[in-house]
Amino acid sequence: MCELLGMSANVPTDICFSFTGLMQRGGGTGPHRDGWGIAFYEGRGCRSFHDPSPSVESEIARLVQRYPIKSHIVISHIRQANVGKVCLENTHPFSRELWGRIWTYAHNGQLDGQLKSWPLGDYQPVGDTDSEYAFCWLLGEIRRAYPQPPGAEQQAELAAFIHQRCEQLRALGVFNMLLADASTLYTYCTTKLHWITRRAPFGEAHLADADVRVDFAKETTPKDVVTVIATLPLTDNEAWTALQVGELVAFRDGEVVQQHRTLMSS
Amino acid sequence: MCELLGMSANVPTDICFSFTGLMQRGGGTGPHRDGWGIAFYEGRGCRSFHDPSPSVESEIARLVQRYPIKSHIVISHIRQANVGKVCLENTHPFSRELWGRIWTYAHNGQLDGQLKSWPLGDYQPVGDTDSEYAFCWLLGEIRRAYPQPPGAEQQAELAAFIHQRCEQLRALGVFNMLLADASTLYTYCTTKLHWITRRAPFGEAHLADADVRVDFAKETTPKDVVTVIATLPLTDNEAWTALQVGELVAFRDGEVVQQHRTLMSS
Repeated sequence: MCELLGMSANVPTDICFSFTGLMQRGGGTGPHRDGWGIAFYEGRGCRSFHDPSPSVESEIARLVQRYPIKSHIVISHIRQANVGKVCLENTHPFSRELWGRIWTYAHNGQLDGQLKSWPLGDYQPVGDTDSEYAFCWLLGEIRRAYPQPPGAEQQAELAAFIHQRCEQLRALGVFNMLLADASTLYTYCTTKLHWITRRAPFGEAHLADADVRVDFAKETTPKDVVTVIATLPLTDNEAWTALQVGELVAFRDGEVVQQHRTLMSS
Repeated sequence: MCELLGMSANVPTDICFSFTGLMQRGGGTGPHRDGWGIAFYEGRGCRSFHDPSPSVESEIARLVQRYPIKSHIVISHIRQANVGKVCLENTHPFSRELWGRIWTYAHNGQLDGQLKSWPLGDYQPVGDTDSEYAFCWLLGEIRRAYPQPPGAEQQAELAAFIHQRCEQLRALGVFNMLLADASTLYTYCTTKLHWITRRAPFGEAHLADADVRVDFAKETTPKDVVTVIATLPLTDNEAWTALQVGELVAFRDGEVVQQHRTLMSS
């Protein structure tokens, strides 16, 4: 099982605290010794770091942890390889450009091999993971349905479209996903994904995986809204919300902007 | 004037020595205070670092200089902004995927504004520089002409095609370029671009911009072939070759594999 970490915030925010917790799971408290990666959006730009070596030993991870890169959307992934060899091109997050925006994606889970018979549109995988193939398929579907960027009034329709395509992927196995362009962070859950929104009045948080505390009241202004999404809750003294099976939640500026659930038939 | 730095090698090689020289020009000995970026290919994967702040002060630059990332193709760029604001999305090198390969590109020079009336194919710029627009145009042209990856027997034809499109861009101003997929590094010159191939017997080199020497004989094996390309020669005790105006040289595994020059009419 890989670990996912995402953030959506209304002000550029560093993710050092959460990343410290996540990093412990990269060969420290977790079994995820097959590399890690992180992408930070800054305006329309996106900066990413990938390292096929375990995060607890990684020099680049130490840089990211020490160096507070301020961002309004972050996607991170610690990998436990089950499909595809351990190498740079198989290391999440993956990125492609659509509509002049950088789209970034990370996946946890495993999908049936028949996925690779699904026809791709304009995006081709570079590595050989099921995860990157699913990303190329999904983004190709979005591009085919929306050759031009959808307007503000089509955001709900776009989220419903992405949800429907995620449902198709979930039919092939486990598909927990983080997907972002420069403004919206889409999250989708098959098995495990949790989120928490922090806003004023801020309190103190304590990491579940390391004896580290942070008092967010000292780090924030009263207007800040910061949502963190992770496979499992990263803190042990806050109430996280679990996504439901088949649920898509989209965040913008730290707030929930779209929510789509599977319609259950009886 | 921005500074370009490229490398093509037949074995994974670090670029610490050349990067040390280049970095001095980022606000040290040169006027390039508007950010820098570097991309390293490792197999089919590509790792890149971007920093909109001056390279001589950059924490990420220190990491890259200290941490010997071994690569067979490298593209780096130090920027002096003349078009577009200083921000992450305007920081070279730029990347896009074509044929399941990551293509990476950096440009030095300036192109006439009429460029932005040229119709784009499948790639759209994220930022607002002429450089990224030219990259999107060029890659769209390649994709249109070669929807499928050309075979080994078409490599010369592909290089000639890229040369011809670079000539079109040169008609709009100054277009010095580095362009790579995971195997070939294409270089094109309008005004200034120099290269050197180092192979056995290796000697000692001395940086022109810092009092640093390296004895390559101690760092290499007799089979290593390493070509370095830079705007201006980085060392002051070796013979660099200047590209001609309108010349394209393609390198693979450190060796020249294609060379195309403008046909002069009299």
